[in-house]
Amino acid sequence: MLNETNVALGKTRSSIRELFEYGNKRKAEIGERNVYDFSLGNPSVPAPEEVKNALLDIIANSDPVALHGYTSAQGAYSVRKTVADYLNKLFATKLDADCIYMTCGAAASLTITLNALVNVGDEVIAFSPYFPEYKVFCNHAGAVFVAVESERDTFQIDFEKLEKALTAKTKAVIINSPNNPSGVVYGEGVIKKLAEVLKKFSAETGNTVYLISDEPYRELVFDGSIKVPCVFNYYAHSIVCYSYSKSLSLPGERIGYIAVNNAMAEFSEVYAGICGAGRVLGYVCAPALFQRLVERVYDKTSDISIYKANRDTLCSALEEYGYKVVRPDGAFYLFVKALEEDAKAFAERAKEYELLLVAGDDFGVKGYVRIAYCVSADMIERALPAFKKLAESYK
Amino acid sequence: MLNETNVALGKTRSSIRELFEYGNKRKAEIGERNVYDFSLGNPSVPAPEEVKNALLDIIANSDPVALHGYTSAQGAYSVRKTVADYLNKLFATKLDADCIYMTCGAAASLTITLNALVNVGDEVIAFSPYFPEYKVFCNHAGAVFVAVESERDTFQIDFEKLEKALTAKTKAVIINSPNNPSGVVYGEGVIKKLAEVLKKFSAETGNTVYLISDEPYRELVFDGSIKVPCVFNYYAHSIVCYSYSKSLSLPGERIGYIAVNNAMAEFSEVYAGICGAGRVLGYVCAPALFQRLVERVYDKTSDISIYKANRDTLCSALEEYGYKVVRPDGAFYLFVKALEEDAKAFAERAKEYELLLVAGDDFGVKGYVRIAYCVSADMIERALPAFKKLAESYK
Repeated sequence: MLNETNVALGKTRSSIRELFEYGNKRKAEIGERNVYDFSLGNPSVPAPEEVKNALLDIIANSDPVALHGYTSAQGAYSVRKTVADYLNKLFATKLDADCIYMTCGAAASLTITLNALVNVGDEVIAFSPYFPEYKVFCNHAGAVFVAVESERDTFQIDFEKLEKALTAKTKAVIINSPNNPSGVVYGEGVIKKLAEVLKKFSAETGNTVYLISDEPYRELVFDGSIKVPCVFNYYAHSIVCYSYSKSLSLPGERIGYIAVNNAMAEFSEVYAGICGAGRVLGYVCAPALFQRLVERVYDKTSDISIYKANRDTLCSALEEYGYKVVRPDGAFYLFVKALEEDAKAFAERAKEYELLLVAGDDFGVKGYVRIAYCVSADMIERALPAFKKLAESYK
Repeated sequence: MLNETNVALGKTRSSIRELFEYGNKRKAEIGERNVYDFSLGNPSVPAPEEVKNALLDIIANSDPVALHGYTSAQGAYSVRKTVADYLNKLFATKLDADCIYMTCGAAASLTITLNALVNVGDEVIAFSPYFPEYKVFCNHAGAVFVAVESERDTFQIDFEKLEKALTAKTKAVIINSPNNPSGVVYGEGVIKKLAEVLKKFSAETGNTVYLISDEPYRELVFDGSIKVPCVFNYYAHSIVCYSYSKSLSLPGERIGYIAVNNAMAEFSEVYAGICGAGRVLGYVCAPALFQRLVERVYDKTSDISIYKANRDTLCSALEEYGYKVVRPDGAFYLFVKALEEDAKAFAERAKEYELLLVAGDDFGVKGYVRIAYCVSADMIERALPAFKKLAESYK
């Protein structure tokens, strides 16, 4: 008998991937321009020009043995130092290179962190709507995944529900702000309140709950006034999982990091756990060339004004057609109320208009669809009449 | 409580890494030229010139969104097709693109394969001397790691011992040829015999045992007459774990693949298990740029004549000084009999002559040291008097 859990996971494509494959088939049938594919969170804005220039320069002018050789498992020291210094500059933290562990992207950051913290039977909380792979990652690490509903309509944390969900077995809470799939950002007030709740719970029960902040969309916020607060400044037992996939439009290259808050007393234990978890999962080091790239372009971001324009076009039009939209502050997703109770049925009907929308059920929320607007402005313009007809079909 | 297994693994550096760090400290004290560091298996021969040219060309002339975007989890189709076609050409197999799963290097190939096959309590066999991380990878997947001693002196498979080790719980046997740390290559006769033993065991017990062939050193063989046979041609239930780390001198870039033999009846189940295991471990896709690179340079190899020259210089000199050496056919390691019973004491005494040799204990064999000769010819020449003095100190 094989490992049937993993065989089953390998056989079921996520519904997002299913839809994406359907889209490719449909495009072949009726032409690429006639299918409006909002299924995947693959950045549509190119990497900043500095990425190309830096890669060409590094490859042309480095000793290949040094460039392509193993780095230490945690990542090259100078790269980790650069990341720590930049975080300190952004957030007034006091991290050093040894707080940083370079990874093969956000998924690796999460699996490594979970495998460092979790013992079999522990519980890990996330707030719905949540990225569906959280459950898969938690279960492999031995944890029970606990979804806590967010506040209706705003998708902010429902603290009453959170307090009820905390138990003696809770090992960690995962937050994801800006959020996939809702685009919602947690402001400073929410993070402060969250820290208070966790501190109070620890004080009362003696159980330390770790706060894992999954931040691949940190730089994708659309108004100067909106800031993604750094959890390190509010809660000692916190770990940031980061990826350059979205900020630098490099999702296929698998480069990111884990930052461990050195304000926690057990910092060395947690960091050692991360090093050990990286070993057992088979992560020898993060890709060396892209580590060197990070050292050069750590403070650059793709042109996110394109995503903002997409959001504005889409939100305004959808509201005009009668859809109920939470106008998101970040990421590149809209989470829109379906026009009937069953979001899967709604997404099916959308397909009749060649609109590919992901039903929110997989994100743990019924009655919504996710629209990934990391697409061309041109496709959005072409898709608007289809959204209009879809709305009219419900009238 | 954190995950104490992983915390402990993060705290203990492997003895190889310990020695490497000692070497760096010692070099700072007495000068780089005066320390003879044979500790690490980091390729010293640069990547072939084609690697640099292909990387520059791909980066300069590709659409960055397509280039750096997610590939499918298994890897880009055209890349997998290239790999399958090349294996078919080399080994007269009949693989197609869907037999290949691109990975972040050999460690990922192994952890993914083990997590696809293993249920808690299964046993996985490897032959000592073995790569120490095998045990770590097996344990995380839930398997009991079973080391079977190789034949003394030749380090070929001891089939009598293997037959005794096979049980109802045996899920897989890992082979590694050319071998780290011995450099020994299994010829066709050994692979045939191994296949026979496993087939006979399956026929008698109904228990299918998978053969995992870990082949990062496949191209590193030093005589035209020596071929590394492809296990697919001898045993249906076989899986090849490959990495370009050594053949293309790209160990830091984390690029390799898993090939699943489509001759086995349960092929689709095993491949699905691999896709699922990749998901749970957090491997979203192998680094996209290096997948594209593989498509261009799949048939290139670093200049291994440099390793061969190193082997010849070192073997001849060591034999002359009175060491007992199994002259290896491949990889870039010598496994040399220590001049006293306790290899750790021997390696400690070697340090007095500034020779950094890894005691074989961690590889599951007592009384030997590993010499990684992926170093400059110049360092070897400078180290020879130290090897001579070390031998004389035992006379």
